[in-house]
Amino acid sequence: MNQSIEIICIGNELLIGKTLNTNAQWLAKRITTMGLDAHRITIVGDKINVISSVIQEAIHRKPSFILITGGLGPTFDDKTLEGIAKALGSKIEVNKTALKMVKEKYLNYALEIRMEAVELTPQRVKMAKLPEGATPLSNPVGTAPAVSIKHENTTLIALPGVPHEMMRIFDESVVPLMNQAAQGVAYFEMSIHSTNVMESEMAPIIVKVMKNNPYVYIKSHPKGSELVPHIEFHLSTTANDVSTAKQYVRNVLLQLTELIQKKGGKIKSVVSEI
Amino acid sequence: MNQSIEIICIGNELLIGKTLNTNAQWLAKRITTMGLDAHRITIVGDKINVISSVIQEAIHRKPSFILITGGLGPTFDDKTLEGIAKALGSKIEVNKTALKMVKEKYLNYALEIRMEAVELTPQRVKMAKLPEGATPLSNPVGTAPAVSIKHENTTLIALPGVPHEMMRIFDESVVPLMNQAAQGVAYFEMSIHSTNVMESEMAPIIVKVMKNNPYVYIKSHPKGSELVPHIEFHLSTTANDVSTAKQYVRNVLLQLTELIQKKGGKIKSVVSEI
Repeated sequence: MNQSIEIICIGNELLIGKTLNTNAQWLAKRITTMGLDAHRITIVGDKINVISSVIQEAIHRKPSFILITGGLGPTFDDKTLEGIAKALGSKIEVNKTALKMVKEKYLNYALEIRMEAVELTPQRVKMAKLPEGATPLSNPVGTAPAVSIKHENTTLIALPGVPHEMMRIFDESVVPLMNQAAQGVAYFEMSIHSTNVMESEMAPIIVKVMKNNPYVYIKSHPKGSELVPHIEFHLSTTANDVSTAKQYVRNVLLQLTELIQKKGGKIKSVVSEI
Repeated sequence: MNQSIEIICIGNELLIGKTLNTNAQWLAKRITTMGLDAHRITIVGDKINVISSVIQEAIHRKPSFILITGGLGPTFDDKTLEGIAKALGSKIEVNKTALKMVKEKYLNYALEIRMEAVELTPQRVKMAKLPEGATPLSNPVGTAPAVSIKHENTTLIALPGVPHEMMRIFDESVVPLMNQAAQGVAYFEMSIHSTNVMESEMAPIIVKVMKNNPYVYIKSHPKGSELVPHIEFHLSTTANDVSTAKQYVRNVLLQLTELIQKKGGKIKSVVSEI
């Protein structure tokens, strides 16, 4: 199975630099930890044509999942579902299950604020208008349901842009959908922090170690400068199971540590996050 | 002149969720404040083919500038310049001015650490290998120069991924290049924070106010929930000069505030950042 994933984040607030895109990072980390690959992240504004284009472009690259955040709310500029429908050449229609979800939310809100009812205005019904064939995913902490829709071998998932809603729905409803794609892959990563050796001096060494350990990706992140060098070497791999993945990374850890020290470098710390 | 800009961020660390993409937000904010438009942000990994594809796709949309971050360093996976060259169908060659810049850096480093010389290894020369026709931009706080290259009506700018290097070069060398595109446009934004009124209730009101004020974009950001509503209304516009832009936004501020209060909403605060 193709394990590649694309992330698309929708919202003018991301393009004007008002909002820091923590959603993309959070999703990318979750995906990676599951052993899957985020291939591309695309951020565009609240325009149906543009949303539809980026979705078509992503579909064309045949990822297993396209995770979309933002644009599911009640206002005029929440255009994600219309964009998806346009991309797939399908209609938008009131989805019965989604409407039931939205209705229940407003019934509960009415109860809580001791009103008889909260009217189901067109703006509220809008949150239940999904592309035909879509499945709503329950939003336990907000109003607008998330949406899942299958197109050929790609599953499109539209999540709210509000981070705590997005995270909760992802963990509860999307992870189970993605688990099949993630079967038989495990991810492991580790970091070595070194000082006293320049990144440009380590460059040929990294190539050598990677040649000897083809499954491990070594990426150096300069934290200081060439003159006062502090480098983080990030080692990561995927394997069929966690213990193999760990073994791959540990082999590189030993080899790289030795070569850093040979160049006069000092190991400041070794960090393993998982 | 077309004032649209695209941002492309390159680095596996962004796709595995290791690094939060503060570069894209910082650039997007700078661009917006200059009165220009970031249309799209794309994030891809360290693969020449993929880098070349995203650059070709962006060029095809004919933005005035493509700002690229990351992948200029000395290691094997710093592939941005090769990706640009591939996208433009041009060769990579040692650029004399860039080589002089890199040489001087290592001469200074040698002096600082009291060595006779720091050898100009292939990995160090690599940072001076630019696509033909490119112009290096001096990096006052790091080693690898940034790069500017004109292709038809689009200027491609490749900046380092290290944030403080990227920011410094952008402000010193890129802003002057972009100022021409930004002539005669001013941006202004303001936020109103309200409580006590649901976003779904404000949705039709926003449409009405925007119809009366076609130059101002109103975007609502729910900060609480439908039940305990706290909404930020972000008002933004561009105009030919700042005072006109401010006037546009202030008109909307007055109208919207009144309508929020009519619905029983309370104004918690008004924030103007610029």
